[in-house]
This record gives sequence, structure tokens and C-alpha cells, in this order.
Amino acid sequence: MINKLIDKIKETHAPIVVGLDPMLSYVPTHITEAAFKKYGETLDGACEAIWQYNKAIVDATYDLIPAVKPQIAMYEQFGIPGLVAFKKTVDYCHEKGLVVIGDIKRGDIGSTSGAYAVGHLGKVKVGSKEYRGFDEDFATINPYMGLDAVKPFVDVCKEEKKGLFILVKTSNPSSGDFQDRLIDGRPLYEWVGEKVNEWGKDHMGDSYSYIGAVVGATYPEQGKILRKVMPKSFILVPGYGAQGGQGKDLVHFFNEDGLGAIVNSSRGIIAAYKQDKYAKYGEANFAEASRAAVIDMREDIQSALEAAK
Amino acid sequence: MINKLIDKIKETHAPIVVGLDPMLSYVPTHITEAAFKKYGETLDGACEAIWQYNKAIVDATYDLIPAVKPQIAMYEQFGIPGLVAFKKTVDYCHEKGLVVIGDIKRGDIGSTSGAYAVGHLGKVKVGSKEYRGFDEDFATINPYMGLDAVKPFVDVCKEEKKGLFILVKTSNPSSGDFQDRLIDGRPLYEWVGEKVNEWGKDHMGDSYSYIGAVVGATYPEQGKILRKVMPKSFILVPGYGAQGGQGKDLVHFFNEDGLGAIVNSSRGIIAAYKQDKYAKYGEANFAEASRAAVIDMREDIQSALEAAK
Repeated sequence: MINKLIDKIKETHAPIVVGLDPMLSYVPTHITEAAFKKYGETLDGACEAIWQYNKAIVDATYDLIPAVKPQIAMYEQFGIPGLVAFKKTVDYCHEKGLVVIGDIKRGDIGSTSGAYAVGHLGKVKVGSKEYRGFDEDFATINPYMGLDAVKPFVDVCKEEKKGLFILVKTSNPSSGDFQDRLIDGRPLYEWVGEKVNEWGKDHMGDSYSYIGAVVGATYPEQGKILRKVMPKSFILVPGYGAQGGQGKDLVHFFNEDGLGAIVNSSRGIIAAYKQDKYAKYGEANFAEASRAAVIDMREDIQSALEAAK
Repeated sequence: MINKLIDKIKETHAPIVVGLDPMLSYVPTHITEAAFKKYGETLDGACEAIWQYNKAIVDATYDLIPAVKPQIAMYEQFGIPGLVAFKKTVDYCHEKGLVVIGDIKRGDIGSTSGAYAVGHLGKVKVGSKEYRGFDEDFATINPYMGLDAVKPFVDVCKEEKKGLFILVKTSNPSSGDFQDRLIDGRPLYEWVGEKVNEWGKDHMGDSYSYIGAVVGATYPEQGKILRKVMPKSFILVPGYGAQGGQGKDLVHFFNEDGLGAIVNSSRGIIAAYKQDKYAKYGEANFAEASRAAVIDMREDIQSALEAAK
């Protein structure tokens, strides 16, 4: 799957992932009204609105991008109907040929991590049959519990040719509370990065490992260091746009081959129509605003990479 | 909810939580066969089996225990039908008057943690209405991302009178990979424990905080230290029984008032009928074996606490 991701990045010239993290407040009124008319102001109504919103954005952007990253929390907040909408979104993105990164940030002790790995990336056995639960292509995972929390995910990825992005240095303001604390003179995130590199070396695609890392765009200096710590790991970079990261901050997350990073934008793309810059599209044409935002983001990153050459 | 948990512990004399972490391989054949007969070897069939298994164990133990802890990964591995079984289990345990600890180990950047908090402990807004997604009473959460990953959960708990158990020192063999690393001479888990204590102080029930911690039974020495670091936090202690922890290892997780800890056993109780010790019950009477295992566990912990007085 890492090979497919890289091929698609080369094909689209866009190391971009669209974060499908819908809040009900982002969904244009005409979609919400139609959904509530059909299902009432219910969880099913909310999830129909979110699904229609996602579908329109995917339809308007899928030819420009290699991947999407649905954030499962945004669906899980609506309980079961929300997770049904999550699964529908994953399946629809697959139909459109997109790589799907499940932003699930799971992690637990061995056998329990195994269950998450099976549910999101692998197959579960039921008697003589096998079934896929959510079936994303990549998943984000949390390393706090150590190697045996990560290994079951790695094993499933190896079997299924899928991949991981392990949290190393996250984009949020408080990420330093523990991640920046110094251990033998170096911050925790560097130690985690070294482990990612180690795990990744034994799990290579053609040119990059399928064990990647998450490093926030909001921490460009740390990104520069971590790029060197994990030369063969793809870095998933959240925090672009709405969280404050810009194209010029991203340059050092990439390797000299122009690869090695994929930058996520969620609100900046899916709710682009709410920004002054894209207001001309109007709420009715929200998906076209998202398309324009993807094109602008591609341009911003490409010119930053060109300028850095 | 921390007050209710403590009242129930006092009432049952059992600082015990039964981990409802069903693997299909634990479920007795007669239950699986009946479920497959009705639904086929499908995800729905598997989840019907798990639900019937859970229900029988809850029916056989609910009067002896204060709380249950369903591990969501074991349900999530079956995709949507699995999560439907999780929700049914949560609701059924509430009907039986049990406190439900959702073992979800979630954690993400601020707004995303907020979505998890709403989905598992709070209410989500849909137009003019509000709905509860999964509606557990407590949730376990992962602190790797720092304060702003924890705060949205704390806020929802305050509003809803619910509670948290934050991962501090986990029970698995690799938990030391990062949690034991020394920062200014003290391991990471102590720093996390201090934060838990700090967060807990401002969020008190009558005698304990509703911001608790997870510390594995498999690390009794660390438990002793962490008990002092977080005097007002309840400690959820996994790792008893199948993972190797015994009653005598648990003594220092408790305070002098005989409270402050609640010990989880999953496989040791729900699959008790598979142990030599309870083989006499036979597969048909698996739930009675679970009841006997709860009584033995209560006795083991009570006599260890008595001996330590």
C-alpha cells in the first residue's frame, strides 16, 4: 500500500491527504435540512448529512489527491450511526481509487491491539469464514504502551500489505507535555522516532517503509530532526492550514527525492467555503470551494519545495 | 459516578471489575452454534454469540460486583455489528445497576478528543436535540498527546458526573519501552502520575477524584510509588489473574481506608470454565464458573488486604 500511495502522489503531484473530519456545523444548511426532512433531527439524520457532505467533497477532489484521512472520532461521537457513516465513507473512497488512512490513534496491550488491527486493517475469523470490519489501508496508532502494543498492527500490515503512521510528535499545543521531555538529553519524540525507524527497516515497500510516523506541521524544527532520524519512513503531517502550518514550514519534512511526507488538511479543505478566500463559491457550491482549496494547497507545497531546491 | 463506584465497592466488599473482553474462542460451543444457526457464520452471528455470552456472565455476577469494563477493541474487531454488541452490553449492564468503564484508550488533539468524549461519556447535539452515543460511565484514555488531549474528557466528565482512568503505567511487558524512561531522574510514568494527581485535585467526588489512573497489577513496586503520587485518584488495576498479578501484589495499590483501587480480571473470570480449577462446572455452566471465580477473586484480595493490616 505504501507503493500505491507513492505512485498516486507522483501521479497527482500532490503529497496531500484530505482529512474527512466532518463537524455538523461545517455541513451546508441545504444538506442538513434535506437529511433532517428525511430522518428527523436524529443521529441517523445527522449521519446522512455528514455522508452526503463527504460524498460531495470526495466527488469534487478525488482526481486531484492520492488519499483521504477520515478521523473516526468525528463519526464515533454519533455512536453506531456515525460509525456506519465512517464505513460508508471508507468504502466510497476505495471505489474512487483513493488510499484511505484511518485516523484512529488506537493502541493497547498485545492481544487487544491485535483486535484493533484485525478490525481496521485485517480480517476477523468467524467459524470457517473471514470478514473485514472497517478495512482502511493505513491506520494511525499511539505508541505510549510500547513495542507489544505496536507489533500486532505491524504483523497485520505485513500480511495485508497495509501500513501505519505512529504518533511521534503531534501537532497540538500541549504535545510537549510528555513528548518533549528529555531522556538522556534527547526528547521523548526522538526516542519514539528511532523506534519507528527500527520497526520500519524490517518492513520496507520498494523505496519507503510501510511503518510511518505522525509529526505535526506546527513543529517544523522537530520535523527537520525527525526526517533524519527516520529516513525511510513516510511522515504524515497534520496541522497544515487551520492549525497554523504553511507550505514553507513543510519543506524539511520531505526528503531530497521530493517524497517522504504527506500533508493533511481537514477543515481548511472540507470547510473551505467558510473562508473569505473561497466565499465567492457560496454555500451551495461548497464542494467546488474544496476543490479550489486542494489546488491552492498543492501549489503552496509545490512552490515551497521548488524554492527550497 | 466516582461516589457511586465507591458506594458499590463498599456494598459488595469487592473492589473488582469484570473485564467483558470476549474472544469468540472463549464462547461455549452451544452458544456459538445457536447463534450461527440463526444468523449463519457471519459478523451478526459472531456478535449474537458474544452478546449472549456477555449477558449470561453479567446475569451470574452482577450482584457480586460494582462494575464491568468492556474492552471496545474486542467488539470493534467485528466492525459495526461488534459495536452494536458493545452498546447492547453497556446498556444491559446499566439495567443491572453496574458501573460501566469503557476501556477505549482514546486520546487525540483538543477538538477531536472532544468528539470522543461526547460520543462515549456525553451528549452530541443534532439540531435542537441531544443524543448519547455509547454512554459509558468511565473511560480509559491515553495521555501521550498531553493536557489538551485530556481536557475535553475532563470537561465532559465534570458536566456529566462521569470519570476517567488515564493510562499511567500499563500492565503489558513492553510498557517500559517509553513509560520507564527517566526524565530528570524519574520515570515518565511518575510524571504522568503527577499530572493525573494535579488534574484530579480540581475534580473531586466526596472522598476521591473522578480523574483516576491505570496502573498494571504486574508492576506492584511501581504501584506502591504511584499510590503515593496520586493519593486521591482511584487506580484501575488490570493484569490480575491471566496476566500474572495476584492478590498479594495488589496491597499497595490501596490506601489505608481500604479504598483507592479497583482490580480488573477479564479472561480469568469470563473464561473461568476453561481453567482446571473450575472445570467441574463444565462448558454448559460457564457462567456459574465465572461466578465462582469472582467469589475466589474477592476472597484473594480481601485476605491479602487483611494480612497487610
